[in-house]
Amino acid sequence: MSTSVRVAVIGHAFMGKAHIHAWRTASRFFDLPRTPEVTLLVGRDSGRAAAAAQQLNVAESTTDWRTAVTRDDIDVVDICTPGDSHREIAVAALAAGKHVLCEKPLANSVEEAEEMTAAAAAADAKGITSFCGFSYRRTPGLALARRFVEEGRLGEIRHVRAQYLQDWLSDANAPLTWRLDKDKAGSGSLGDIGAHSIDAAQWVSGQRIEGVSALLHTFVTSRPVAGVAEGLGGAGDATSEKGPVTVDDAAAFTARFDGGAVGVFEATRFALGRRNANRLEINGSLGSVAFDFERMNELEYFDGRDDQQAQGFRRIHVTDSVHPYTGNWWPVGHGLGYGDLFIHQVADVIDALGGGPQTRPNFADALEVQRVLHAVETSAEDSSRYTPVAR
Amino acid sequence: MSTSVRVAVIGHAFMGKAHIHAWRTASRFFDLPRTPEVTLLVGRDSGRAAAAAQQLNVAESTTDWRTAVTRDDIDVVDICTPGDSHREIAVAALAAGKHVLCEKPLANSVEEAEEMTAAAAAADAKGITSFCGFSYRRTPGLALARRFVEEGRLGEIRHVRAQYLQDWLSDANAPLTWRLDKDKAGSGSLGDIGAHSIDAAQWVSGQRIEGVSALLHTFVTSRPVAGVAEGLGGAGDATSEKGPVTVDDAAAFTARFDGGAVGVFEATRFALGRRNANRLEINGSLGSVAFDFERMNELEYFDGRDDQQAQGFRRIHVTDSVHPYTGNWWPVGHGLGYGDLFIHQVADVIDALGGGPQTRPNFADALEVQRVLHAVETSAEDSSRYTPVAR
Amino acid sequence: MSTSVRVAVIGHAFMGKAHIHAWRTASRFFDLPRTPEVTLLVGRDSGRAAAAAQQLNVAESTTDWRTAVTRDDIDVVDICTPGDSHREIAVAALAAGKHVLCEKPLANSVEEAEEMTAAAAAADAKGITSFCGFSYRRTPGLALARRFVEEGRLGEIRHVRAQYLQDWLSDANAPLTWRLDKDKAGSGSLGDIGAHSIDAAQWVSGQRIEGVSALLHTFVTSRPVAGVAEGLGGAGDATSEKGPVTVDDAAAFTARFDGGAVGVFEATRFALGRRNANRLEINGSLGSVAFDFERMNELEYFDGRDDQQAQGFRRIHVTDSVHPYTGNWWPVGHGLGYGDLFIHQVADVIDALGGGPQTRPNFADALEVQRVLHAVETSAEDSSRYTPVAR
Amino acid sequence: MSTSVRVAVIGHAFMGKAHIHAWRTASRFFDLPRTPEVTLLVGRDSGRAAAAAQQLNVAESTTDWRTAVTRDDIDVVDICTPGDSHREIAVAALAAGKHVLCEKPLANSVEEAEEMTAAAAAADAKGITSFCGFSYRRTPGLALARRFVEEGRLGEIRHVRAQYLQDWLSDANAPLTWRLDKDKAGSGSLGDIGAHSIDAAQWVSGQRIEGVSALLHTFVTSRPVAGVAEGLGGAGDATSEKGPVTVDDAAAFTARFDGGAVGVFEATRFALGRRNANRLEINGSLGSVAFDFERMNELEYFDGRDDQQAQGFRRIHVTDSVHPYTGNWWPVGHGLGYGDLFIHQVADVIDALGGGPQTRPNFADALEVQRVLHAVETSAEDSSRYTPVAR
Repeated sequence: MSTSVRVAVIGHAFMGKAHIHAWRTASRFFDLPRTPEVTLLVGRDSGRAAAAAQQLNVAESTTDWRTAVTRDDIDVVDICTPGDSHREIAVAALAAGKHVLCEKPLANSVEEAEEMTAAAAAADAKGITSFCGFSYRRTPGLALARRFVEEGRLGEIRHVRAQYLQDWLSDANAPLTWRLDKDKAGSGSLGDIGAHSIDAAQWVSGQRIEGVSALLHTFVTSRPVAGVAEGLGGAGDATSEKGPVTVDDAAAFTARFDGGAVGVFEATRFALGRRNANRLEINGSLGSVAFDFERMNELEYFDGRDDQQAQGFRRIHVTDSVHPYTGNWWPVGHGLGYGDLFIHQVADVIDALGGGPQTRPNFADALEVQRVLHAVETSAEDSSRYTPVAR
Repeated sequence: MSTSVRVAVIGHAFMGKAHIHAWRTASRFFDLPRTPEVTLLVGRDSGRAAAAAQQLNVAESTTDWRTAVTRDDIDVVDICTPGDSHREIAVAALAAGKHVLCEKPLANSVEEAEEMTAAAAAADAKGITSFCGFSYRRTPGLALARRFVEEGRLGEIRHVRAQYLQDWLSDANAPLTWRLDKDKAGSGSLGDIGAHSIDAAQWVSGQRIEGVSALLHTFVTSRPVAGVAEGLGGAGDATSEKGPVTVDDAAAFTARFDGGAVGVFEATRFALGRRNANRLEINGSLGSVAFDFERMNELEYFDGRDDQQAQGFRRIHVTDSVHPYTGNWWPVGHGLGYGDLFIHQVADVIDALGGGPQTRPNFADALEVQRVLHAVETSAEDSSRYTPVAR
Repeated sequence: MSTSVRVAVIGHAFMGKAHIHAWRTASRFFDLPRTPEVTLLVGRDSGRAAAAAQQLNVAESTTDWRTAVTRDDIDVVDICTPGDSHREIAVAALAAGKHVLCEKPLANSVEEAEEMTAAAAAADAKGITSFCGFSYRRTPGLALARRFVEEGRLGEIRHVRAQYLQDWLSDANAPLTWRLDKDKAGSGSLGDIGAHSIDAAQWVSGQRIEGVSALLHTFVTSRPVAGVAEGLGGAGDATSEKGPVTVDDAAAFTARFDGGAVGVFEATRFALGRRNANRLEINGSLGSVAFDFERMNELEYFDGRDDQQAQGFRRIHVTDSVHPYTGNWWPVGHGLGYGDLFIHQVADVIDALGGGPQTRPNFADALEVQRVLHAVETSAEDSSRYTPVAR
Repeated sequence: MSTSVRVAVIGHAFMGKAHIHAWRTASRFFDLPRTPEVTLLVGRDSGRAAAAAQQLNVAESTTDWRTAVTRDDIDVVDICTPGDSHREIAVAALAAGKHVLCEKPLANSVEEAEEMTAAAAAADAKGITSFCGFSYRRTPGLALARRFVEEGRLGEIRHVRAQYLQDWLSDANAPLTWRLDKDKAGSGSLGDIGAHSIDAAQWVSGQRIEGVSALLHTFVTSRPVAGVAEGLGGAGDATSEKGPVTVDDAAAFTARFDGGAVGVFEATRFALGRRNANRLEINGSLGSVAFDFERMNELEYFDGRDDQQAQGFRRIHVTDSVHPYTGNWWPVGHGLGYGDLFIHQVADVIDALGGGPQTRPNFADALEVQRVLHAVETSAEDSSRYTPVAR
C-alpha cells in the first residue's frame, strides 16, 4: 500500500528535532489515514546534519534544501529554519508540488508572507496544501477553549487578555544570539512569542484584530558577543566585546477586534520567574476561559449561568477522553507535554492530506498574524497611535 | 488626658461604614498615641443619617457637612462622598484647621485636585495634615511588596503589570446608577478601580508614570433606569426606560515610567468571574513580586538569586509577626479581611497625628494619580497617541 | 428598651481579645434582635486585666470569675480560659442562670464534658442556652460546604479528609509553654487543632464518627523552660534547663462514620511551611468540596453532574451576597478575615438569644467531639487498634 | 557496532504501549551507551498482537511469552502483564540470562516477590539485572524532591503525607473488570496506586516503613458484569447481571518510618473530581516539599532558612536544564507529559546496562513495597492494629 507520506525536514535544532520526533510517532498513537516517515534531513553543516540524522533515525541527510524540493520521493517539505529563509524554500516547494508545513512566524515581513500566501493559493488549486506551525493550537486546553467559544458558552466576547512571559534574557550579560538580530529574526519578543498570542487570540475568540496601539522596548541594548565572550573567559568579563541588540525585548499593545472585543497583549523575555507563561483569558457575557501554558493540562472555565452561590472558575484537567486529542493518549489525569503538541500537529496534517477536514492555520491564516505584527511595529514607531491592520 | 482625636465622617454608605468601623476599632488592636472617636456623622437624608448613627454608635448626626468643618470639637474631617463634592468639603475643612482624610480618587479633575493640593500645602504649614484613602496601600501583601522594592530585592525594575478586574456590570440589564454617570463619578472603571492600580503601581515600584497610550471602551451604552425599571417589574422588561451610560466600562493603557520600567494596565467591570482581582506584578532584574487581592493574605515573590534548581515563586502567607501590620493581629496563618485595611489606615493616620512619621498618600500623592488619569483620558481621545503626564 | 445583652468575658489573651472585639462589633454589621455589650472582663492578674479592659473599652475588670456568675447584671458568661477551668466556671454559670459561651475544646476529659452537658441540659429547661466556640463553623466557606451537603449536592458521602497543619513547633528549641503541659492543655495538637477538624468533619458531613484507629507522636520530648532559657541568654544555650513535653506534637487517625464514610485525619504543629492549613475535603457520589483556611475566602466545589468536558473543581470566592454571613459585609470579592468569624459567632448567639433558631454547636455537640478525642487517645495507647467512640 | 539492546515486550495494553513508545524513542533524546530496539511483542491474542505490532512498528509478534525467554536475540524481557503472571515470566527470563524490567506491583504476594528477588540476586551474580517499573520515580519533580532530601535541605524528616486520589469508580454502575478481581489484581486501590505512594514515600524520604495501622474499604460491593451488561444494552440496566467486587475501593493507613518520621497514606478511586492526584508531601526540620502529579511539572519547596519575612512555598517549574532529566528536552517552562516518564525509565535502564550506575528500583526494592502492602492487609484484617513490616 502506497499510503506513506514521505517528509523532508529542513533544520534540526529545537524545532526540527521536535518535528522529526512527531512525524515518527504520530501513527503510533493516532489512527491515521497515511503513515508519515521522515526520509530526508537538511542541515547547513554536513557533519552535524549527518549526526542528527543518525540520532533521529533518518536515513539520509544533505546540506542543500533544494534536494528536498526537487526529489520525487518527497511529499511534504517541513521548514524549521529561521524566518529569513521561509519565503524562498516555501515558494519553491509549493511550485514543485510539495505540501508545505512552515514554522511560525510565517515570514519576516508582510510582503514575504503575501508572496507565500499567493503561492499557497495557486498550489491549493492543484491539491497542494500549506500549513503554518502555530503549534499551541494543538494544546488540548486551548483547543477546548476554542470549542467552548464555538459552542456559545462564552456569549458575546468582551475581553481578550494575552500575555506571553518568559525570562531568559533577564540577565543583562546573557550573550548576543541571532534571535537578537533583526535581520535574522525579523523582530524580538514580538515575532517570537507575541505571534503565538496573536494567533491564539484570534483563533480562540473567532474575531480578527482590527487595529492596535503599541509600544516596543529594548531594556538591554548591547550584549556580549557570544563567541568572543566565551573566548575571553566569560560573558561578564569587563573586556568582553559587545554587540548591539536590534530587536525588541518586550512588546505591549492594546487592540480592538472586529467582533467588538477589546484586547490587551504583552510579550516579554524579561518577566523574571515566568518561564513560559503563555496565557490567554477571554471574558464573555456568559462565560470566561483562562489558560496558562505553564499548566498546559488545565483550562479554567467560568460559567456565569451556574447558580449564583456555586459560581467559580473551574479547573478542568484537560485529559479526559472527551477532550481534544487526549482520547488517544493516557487515562484521565495523566497529562501531556510540550512535545506531544507536535504529534497532534502531525496527526492533523496527515488527516487533512488523507482527505479529512482542512487543517488550520494555513498560510492565509498566518498572513493574518503577520499583518497584525506589522501594525504593531507601525504603531510603535508612530507614538503608539492607533493603527488599523491593513488588509 | 486630651489625647482623643475627634472625627466627623461625611457619608455612611459602603465607604463611610468601613471608615467608622475602623475609627472605633483601631485602638483596640494598635497601640496608638491618641484614641480616635467618631463624634459626628453627616448624611444627606436626615432620617437615614440618624439611623446609621444609631447602628454605628455615633452620638450625633446631621445633614450639613459644614457643621463638621465649623465645630471646634472636631479634629479630623473624613470625606466618604462621591468625587464631585470632595473639593469643596476638603478645601473648607483644611482652611478651618481640620485634618482631612479624603476618599479616592481625590477629585473628578486635575484642576480640582490641584486646588485641593494647594490648600493642603497651605494647611501643612500650620501643622494640618491631608491624607487620601488609597486603602489598598494598607494591605500587608502590597506593603510587603513595597518593602521588598525598598530593600533592593527586585533590582532594576523592568515590568509593571496591573489589572483590576471586576464583573458586576457583565449583565447588560444591570441598572443605571450614579457610578455610570460621568458628572457624578468623573469616570467609570478608570477612576473607580484603575486609580487604585495607578497609585499602587507608582508606590510599590517607586517610579512615576511618564506617559501613557490608552483605550477606553463602553460595552453597554444604555441601561435600565433603576427606579423606573423596578417600578415596571424588572430590569429586563422590554418596556423599561433606558438611560445612557456616560463613563467607560473598561480602560487599558500602556505606560512608561521615569525609572525605565514599562507598564501595562487594565481596569474593567466586565471580566466575568473575576470578583475583585486587583492584581499587581512587578519584574525586576533580581526578583519579582505578584499580588492578587482575591488572595489578599498572600504575596508571590521570586528571588532570582536562589540557586538555580530551587528557584520558584514563593507563596508568602503575609500574616507573620514580622510582616507589615500583621503583628498586631492574630497568630501566623490566620488571615485578615478587607475591613481590616481601614483599621490600618486609621492607625497610620493617628500615628502621624500623634507625632509619628508622615503617612502617605497625602493630597500631593493623590494629585499624581489624578494627572495620570487625565493623561489616560487625553490619549484615549487622541487615537491612543502616547501622551506625557503633564506636571 | 431593655434589649441589650450584657456579657462577662473570662480571659483576655488571644481568644478573649477576639471575643470582646466581636461582642462590640457584631451589631454594627448585623441586624440583631438585641445589642450585646461587654460589661465585665475577668483576668488572673489585676493590673493586666485593668489594662486590657481599658484598651478594649470594657468598663470594669476583676480577678474573680465568680463575680461574673453572681452579678445580676450579666446575661452571658463567655469562657476564654485554658481547658482545665472550663467545667467549674461553666457549671456555676449555668446554675446561676447565665447563658454560657465556652471556648473549645469543651473540657479536658469526657467526664468533665459530660458533667457540663448535663448542666446545660438542666439549664436548657429554664431557657438558658449553652454554646461552644468552634469558631471555624462561622467561616463562610465551610458554612457553604455544609449547605451544599444539606442540599444533596454531594450525594452519598464516601470520603472525609481533614488535615490541620501548623508549624510553630518545628524549631526544636522553641520554648516550653503551658500548651505543652498535659495537665493544663489536656492534649497537644489533638485537642488544640484536631478538635476543630473533628467538629468540622462531623458537622459538614452530617455524619458522626463511629470509631477510630489512631497514632499520637511527640517529636521533641523536652524543650527549654521559657523563663530560664531567657535568663540564660537564649533558647539554644547548651546550659539551658529543659523540661518535658507531655502532650502530642502530632496526631493521625483513620475513622469510620455512621453514614458509611471513611475518614483520614491529621493534626500537627510540625508541618514546616504550613501556617494554619485547616483543610477539609469531602468526596461524595455526586460532588466534592475542599476547603483550606489559608485561603479562607474560597471553597472548591466539584459537581459531577456538569457535562463531562466541562467538569472541574470550581474556585468559589465565598464573598457573594447569597453566601453565608457575607451579605452583611462588603461587595463580592473583598474578603473577610479570621477576626470576623467571631463576629459571626456573636451574631448567631444573639439571634438565638433573641428568639431565633437554635445556634449550634451547643455543649452536647461539643461532647461528641470530646468522645472522639477520647477514642483517639484510647486507640493510640492500644497499638492503634480500632476503637469505637463510646456513647 | 553491536551496541543495540534487543527487547521483548510482554503485553501491549496501556503499559505495553507506553513502554514500546519509550524503547523506540529514548535514544532520540538521550545520549545512551546502547540503542534499544523492540524486536518482539507478545500478546495473548494472535490477531490483536499482530495488529499492535504493526501499529507500534515492531517486527514480530507471538502469543507465547516463552519465545521471548528462549530466543538468543533478546537481551531484555519487559513484563507489562497483570500481576498474577509476573513471577513465572520473570523467574524464567532471569534464569535464561535476560535482563528483566517488570511492571509494578512486583507480584501479587510477598511469597512471589521473595522468589523473584532471590532469582534476581542469583542472576545479578552473572551480570544480569532486574528493574521494577515504579515509573513515577522518573518524574522530574519527584526526582528533584529526592535530590533535595539527599542534599540535606529538609533536615530531619518528621512528616510523610501521601495521597493517591482517583475517581474512575465513583459511579456505582461502572462495570466490573479484572482490576476489581482479587485473583487477578492482587488488591484494589492499595496495590494499583497505593503501591506507587509507598515506593515514592520510602524512596524520597530515604526511610523505610517500620509498621502500619490500616483500614481497607469497599464502597460498592457488586457491579454490572462488563460483557453481560454490554450485551444487555447498558451498565445501568435493571436486569444487568452483577458480580462481586473482591478488592478494596479505598485504603488508608498511618505509618511509622525507621528514621523517626510519621506517615499518613490514602489511596482511593472514589475521590470524585481528583483525576490522578498522586501527591506526596514531606516536612522536615529545615524544609518541606510537596508534589501533585496533576501538576507534574511543578514541585513546591519550602526553605525554613529563608529570612522570615520572605518564607513561602516555592512553586518550582521543574523544567530547567539543571533539573533531573529535563536538560535533554525542551527549553525551560515547556513541560513534559506522562509518557515521557517511560522514556526516562528506558534511559536509566540502558545507562545501567551500558555500564553506568545501578538503576533503582530493582526487585529487592520492589519487595520492600510488597512487604508494606502485606502489612497493610494484615493490619486491616486485625482491627487496624499496628503491624510491623516483616523483614
